[in-house]
Amino acid sequence: MLYGGDSIMGSLEADILIRDCTILPMNGREIIERGFIAIKGDRISHIGRASGAQKIKAEKVMEGRGRVAIPGLVNCHTHVAMTLFRGIGEDQDLNKWLNKTIWPLEAKLKPGDVYDGALLGCLEMIKSGTTCFADMYFIEDMVAKAVEKAGLRAVLAPGILEAGSPERGEKLLKEGIEVVRKHHGSANGRISIRFGPHATYTCSPSLLKKVREAASSLNVGIHMHLAESREMVELVKERYGLTEVELLESIGFLKPDVLAAHCIYLSEEERQIMAKHDVKVAYNPVANMKIAQGILKIKDLMDLGVTVGIGTDGPASNNTLDMFKDMKFAALLQKVCYMDPTIMPVKQALKMATVDGAKALGLENTVGSLENGKKADLILINFEKPHLTPRHDPYANIVYSACGSDVETVIVDGTILMEGREVKNLDEGEVMQKASRTALDLLTR
Amino acid sequence: MLYGGDSIMGSLEADILIRDCTILPMNGREIIERGFIAIKGDRISHIGRASGAQKIKAEKVMEGRGRVAIPGLVNCHTHVAMTLFRGIGEDQDLNKWLNKTIWPLEAKLKPGDVYDGALLGCLEMIKSGTTCFADMYFIEDMVAKAVEKAGLRAVLAPGILEAGSPERGEKLLKEGIEVVRKHHGSANGRISIRFGPHATYTCSPSLLKKVREAASSLNVGIHMHLAESREMVELVKERYGLTEVELLESIGFLKPDVLAAHCIYLSEEERQIMAKHDVKVAYNPVANMKIAQGILKIKDLMDLGVTVGIGTDGPASNNTLDMFKDMKFAALLQKVCYMDPTIMPVKQALKMATVDGAKALGLENTVGSLENGKKADLILINFEKPHLTPRHDPYANIVYSACGSDVETVIVDGTILMEGREVKNLDEGEVMQKASRTALDLLTR
Repeated sequence: MLYGGDSIMGSLEADILIRDCTILPMNGREIIERGFIAIKGDRISHIGRASGAQKIKAEKVMEGRGRVAIPGLVNCHTHVAMTLFRGIGEDQDLNKWLNKTIWPLEAKLKPGDVYDGALLGCLEMIKSGTTCFADMYFIEDMVAKAVEKAGLRAVLAPGILEAGSPERGEKLLKEGIEVVRKHHGSANGRISIRFGPHATYTCSPSLLKKVREAASSLNVGIHMHLAESREMVELVKERYGLTEVELLESIGFLKPDVLAAHCIYLSEEERQIMAKHDVKVAYNPVANMKIAQGILKIKDLMDLGVTVGIGTDGPASNNTLDMFKDMKFAALLQKVCYMDPTIMPVKQALKMATVDGAKALGLENTVGSLENGKKADLILINFEKPHLTPRHDPYANIVYSACGSDVETVIVDGTILMEGREVKNLDEGEVMQKASRTALDLLTR
Repeated sequence: MLYGGDSIMGSLEADILIRDCTILPMNGREIIERGFIAIKGDRISHIGRASGAQKIKAEKVMEGRGRVAIPGLVNCHTHVAMTLFRGIGEDQDLNKWLNKTIWPLEAKLKPGDVYDGALLGCLEMIKSGTTCFADMYFIEDMVAKAVEKAGLRAVLAPGILEAGSPERGEKLLKEGIEVVRKHHGSANGRISIRFGPHATYTCSPSLLKKVREAASSLNVGIHMHLAESREMVELVKERYGLTEVELLESIGFLKPDVLAAHCIYLSEEERQIMAKHDVKVAYNPVANMKIAQGILKIKDLMDLGVTVGIGTDGPASNNTLDMFKDMKFAALLQKVCYMDPTIMPVKQALKMATVDGAKALGLENTVGSLENGKKADLILINFEKPHLTPRHDPYANIVYSACGSDVETVIVDGTILMEGREVKNLDEGEVMQKASRTALDLLTR
């Protein structure tokens, strides 16, 4: 098989050269042993086998011996500022957790709090190899500010919900439009904005229609919750006489730019409608287990051609943003759910966390795989660890054995965010201390 | 509440003093903030609040600021030498995996291979905070050798199975008796031996009776597989006209010294028989999901008073020995299985991995909790990490957010095995390299 690097004829300049590493490109091509990756500006300029690296002159050379390079992980559904609530209200039933614990705290949130929580989340993601995430929350411009500072890539969705107050819905939609105008495409394109209508049981069909119109006219996508709990699915059906997906289809809401999180309770008809409109899905195995909502049966969706990425959900219901943990859950939950160990092979689990995740966010031409011309979003995993030894199957080692802390180097948009586990542009101690203080203050405010 | 340290009157000598750390004693007592732990010889001599530490003079003082001390984790079921097969034969159905992948490789295993694999496993456990494990495998004296060198505590069970050959069963039982005589109580009591009859479908009732007699006369326990797969449960019922547990009860096999791994397919009657004889259970959530065997419903057992610990199972079917991963799976799998988020609270999950695990191995008077007079088997977790911030609930942070790599210090039997993540008595690079070579050699042998 011919890689870009094999055909390099003369000497070439690059900003960063990673040499002598194992590369899992995740674009359908096979593993490159002793490969190199050259980065020029914000893009991957060449990928190839070791011999090709000699022809490249780079400002910065990184030795990749014993390291495995993969695309940066893509977290398809979270509420990142909820790091502030990590570990609050454990082991409660959903109604108590929402009504007595989370919502009263969220009502007290100020913009600075969201920034502090989001920055802690960004730091956690950098340290565990996530380079891109899809967020949905209030005061999302503060999340944008944190993402810009941290250097990550993100698809941010300002939350929109009525919960009985149409005025509230209109106001949040207007604010969302402002966030789109201000932040969409900012930070060298690292930040994009979507609308975040919360769910069909908290937004009326008329509001959802307006959201759809705004999204289409501004050419941005939509990120929402769908079919997360049996109770809410039944409530919607009772209220409108239609299933959630039927309702959304009936108002022309469903298009390929819709990312739907959870999707646990879908009928076969609903799955077919999802597939017909190429709606994308975020699978949140850990949060769905923790809140005991149920299990998304992925094969049923994938067999219809639906794109599925993995989301951690918010750190209050996970309780981390470490995609390595969630990849393992993502695969194993499917195996036991279908009672079939051949379901969801390791390579497919890593695909969901990289290239399929990028596709779910509409970023398939930008990131998600390692190939010439794509944005340089990648991570190096240190495989010289007891739990990653021996290396019979690097995919299995990554999905089943690795931890976020095995990630040594993180590059986003051609910029090194972490090297040798040292985060470059954030003061770790300060970020942690500030978020801790804010979290404690919230409890006593 | 009065802790040992509060009542220290004069100055006291210790070998090791850990001061200013948060202590989760796991013995029913509450969290000690700013506590100290003093170790004299192989035992905890005093635990108390910060003020008490001033009265203690120690050879070695460790600063515990930002660290959380918990009992060393107890892995109740593994086949540790199978690190050699980590990542071999992924995503295969059980029959193919056993017949085509694992058994042919195991048939080639020599004593030195088992030692190399076991030592790698011991290294991995030290680096992820496991201080005690229950193993079952062939050539178990090589595992004993590795445990002795690594400094861990272990309950080792030489495997016994007939699989159609009574002579083989007799031979393995004899070898097991030899291992008991040679190793039981060795390494300052760190190593104990049990008999490891594989399962009711691979050992005849007559062999199992002999194993029971040998165990009782030598005063050692038994570690076996039980009710792991529906297929084998049905096979046994067809063969003997009794369920597995009924069969074992009928031959007088069941006593409190029996540790049964898996126990997925038990009837209510079988659970009651287990409880009546105080049989202990090892729950292996990750391996059961990975091989798609099913889900052990723990509440049904615990409501009857059965002691349940957590096992990783062998690294070929997990694929790590990192108990932090398995604690999270242990808790979340129960929540989604019962569709109840209040099931298996975080504190209970940590209890299963420490004090209940110790009880499952008959070591409840020796290890499993932090209290005066118990053996000094403990770990310090560095909480100054983004994913462990803020610290609203240290139990939740440990069970849901921490990784093995957050463990900074490991002490077993009063000896420091790891400090600042540096393993004291093993050459990490050498252990990994040797196991890698052995694993590759096995594939081509």
